[in-house]
Amino acid sequence: MKNVRVNLGHRSYDIRIGKGLLSKAGEQLREVAEGSRVFLVANTTVFDLYGQRAIEVFEDAGYEVVHLLIPEGERIKNLQTVENIYTYLIAQKADRRSIMVALGGGVTGDIVGFVAATFLRGVPYVQLPTTLLAQVDSSVGGKTGVNHRLGKNLIGAFYQPDLVVVDTESLQTLSDREFSAGLYEVVKYGLIYDKDFFDYFTNNLPALRSRDDLALERAISRCCEIKAEVISIDEKESNLRRILNFGHTLGHALEAATDYERFKHGEAVAYGMLAAAELSKVQGLIDDEQMESIAHTVLAIGPLPKASDVAFSRLAAAIKHDKKREDDRTVFVLLKGIGQTEMASGFPEGLLEDVWNRAVARAKS
Amino acid sequence: MKNVRVNLGHRSYDIRIGKGLLSKAGEQLREVAEGSRVFLVANTTVFDLYGQRAIEVFEDAGYEVVHLLIPEGERIKNLQTVENIYTYLIAQKADRRSIMVALGGGVTGDIVGFVAATFLRGVPYVQLPTTLLAQVDSSVGGKTGVNHRLGKNLIGAFYQPDLVVVDTESLQTLSDREFSAGLYEVVKYGLIYDKDFFDYFTNNLPALRSRDDLALERAISRCCEIKAEVISIDEKESNLRRILNFGHTLGHALEAATDYERFKHGEAVAYGMLAAAELSKVQGLIDDEQMESIAHTVLAIGPLPKASDVAFSRLAAAIKHDKKREDDRTVFVLLKGIGQTEMASGFPEGLLEDVWNRAVARAKS
Repeated sequence: MKNVRVNLGHRSYDIRIGKGLLSKAGEQLREVAEGSRVFLVANTTVFDLYGQRAIEVFEDAGYEVVHLLIPEGERIKNLQTVENIYTYLIAQKADRRSIMVALGGGVTGDIVGFVAATFLRGVPYVQLPTTLLAQVDSSVGGKTGVNHRLGKNLIGAFYQPDLVVVDTESLQTLSDREFSAGLYEVVKYGLIYDKDFFDYFTNNLPALRSRDDLALERAISRCCEIKAEVISIDEKESNLRRILNFGHTLGHALEAATDYERFKHGEAVAYGMLAAAELSKVQGLIDDEQMESIAHTVLAIGPLPKASDVAFSRLAAAIKHDKKREDDRTVFVLLKGIGQTEMASGFPEGLLEDVWNRAVARAKS
Repeated sequence: MKNVRVNLGHRSYDIRIGKGLLSKAGEQLREVAEGSRVFLVANTTVFDLYGQRAIEVFEDAGYEVVHLLIPEGERIKNLQTVENIYTYLIAQKADRRSIMVALGGGVTGDIVGFVAATFLRGVPYVQLPTTLLAQVDSSVGGKTGVNHRLGKNLIGAFYQPDLVVVDTESLQTLSDREFSAGLYEVVKYGLIYDKDFFDYFTNNLPALRSRDDLALERAISRCCEIKAEVISIDEKESNLRRILNFGHTLGHALEAATDYERFKHGEAVAYGMLAAAELSKVQGLIDDEQMESIAHTVLAIGPLPKASDVAFSRLAAAIKHDKKREDDRTVFVLLKGIGQTEMASGFPEGLLEDVWNRAVARAKS
């Protein structure tokens, strides 16, 4: 087991990472939170896989467990679902010491985190992420929220969990596609912050792809360490934290332009990272060899759905709606070599289209 | 003008208090927040009184001002209104540097603060409270939120403003009843924290009731100082901050038992303070003379609506639903002399009914 501490003053917390850790979640919760009632939220698919086990684990640690099932999918990540959960919590007489537990992927974590942030002005909560993407990204860092019908993640709050427990065993039940989508976010951490980890990732990709528990534990814990380091310096994304958005400007645009249906988030980010790397090369921040190395590793993760038929004009339109825009500027995270970043903006649309097309051509789609 | 600094690390902010300060709000905002657009929210009544002036003031300071009108009353303090505001903000392309400005009383401030806390995971906001209650209570301290149909203020977040500007002149347009309702919260600060301020209040009640600007500036700034001191020690109400709930356990219960229609919040708190003082006397924490002095000052503020026909059993039922209950205990804030408090719980219902009846009898209602 590995432990990563997220240092945020009195809101600091631990991320525990290892095989079979779900069975320890109850006793680990005892160490960090008062209260005697746990409200466990999961979608039906995840509940079928891990729900009963999770209930037992918390009951064995002396908690009364109430569980709430939510429908599956990004579609239900909205205020209506949040309000339904509030209503259920009130009916069950949840109070300020009630502990919300999110069991599942990013959608569940985002919704439950937002409920925890806004019910009775904040109650304790625990993340038990079951997807690779959630384990290395959405469950760490305190971003919570839901979608508005006019845009994704427009409603939300920064709110930190009291504990994150990552059981690598839960990755064994993911589809290959969903697992690969998480690996794109894993390699991102190497690209933006840690050349050694990028090399480790490249060299150990076969073990990672075959879901070897020790390789996963090592990779996930390094991602969490990097994210913890970044957010402890800049919790609210005013500066350093923005490096985590590497690949996300064009990635989000690709997701939006295809109505969030064709690409998994990580897949869209893969395209975005390739394009941002190309842009970094045009700017002279990385050389040809580095570009090839990046593209080789990213594309070795797995097949990417086709993007060649998506008109760049649709991406350009989507970028203009991105909530991260600052006074009409679109800021890109570029690579400066492998393992470092630089912020830049003011690129003409023609140049963006050019690097986008190069990325799409590399993916041979 | 007086300035009260709320010390909360990097989220510290100033409360400016004085006559005619609305005209300075634009330049004061310039000192604390970046961004070029202001979203001013007010209800129609307040907007008719101060809206155009506020728009001019921010425009003169170089901001683009967009205004949103909301209906009046506690009834619209709900998630639907919040969602309507999100939709408007998105349609107007508000971004993370857009500044929310709440112009009005507690309802407007609570709603706008919650929107600011949860739109794009938090945008800057400014409170321009126009009622006495909002000036000494709801605009300071970062409690934001809305009601759920099953209970008041069950949805919300702790989120601090970037600036609070209190223009005492806005109090001249309040009805006598609304103004008096605010004075009950003013005297509360003396009772729980500052004997000298209680004496000042008692001695200067005629000037305060005639809305003398200097007396108001002095009283409001002292209330804000006390609240700022308390919340800088305990922002999230885990301990010291609970003293601010003096009179609120039974006060909230009285409001709930009468469907929030008969009593203004401050009036219900007045009954709650009288009862909590009686309970303090029964516990030997204050003597007869102190009790008489408290009752005399509280009742000199103005007439209280009748409470004698409200069955205590209805209050007792409402207390059981209070969100501040901790594992089924109802905690009361008691006075220990004038200017200090003590927490206590475990009182039999018969005793609570007894002190309640004494309070009601004192109000001669």
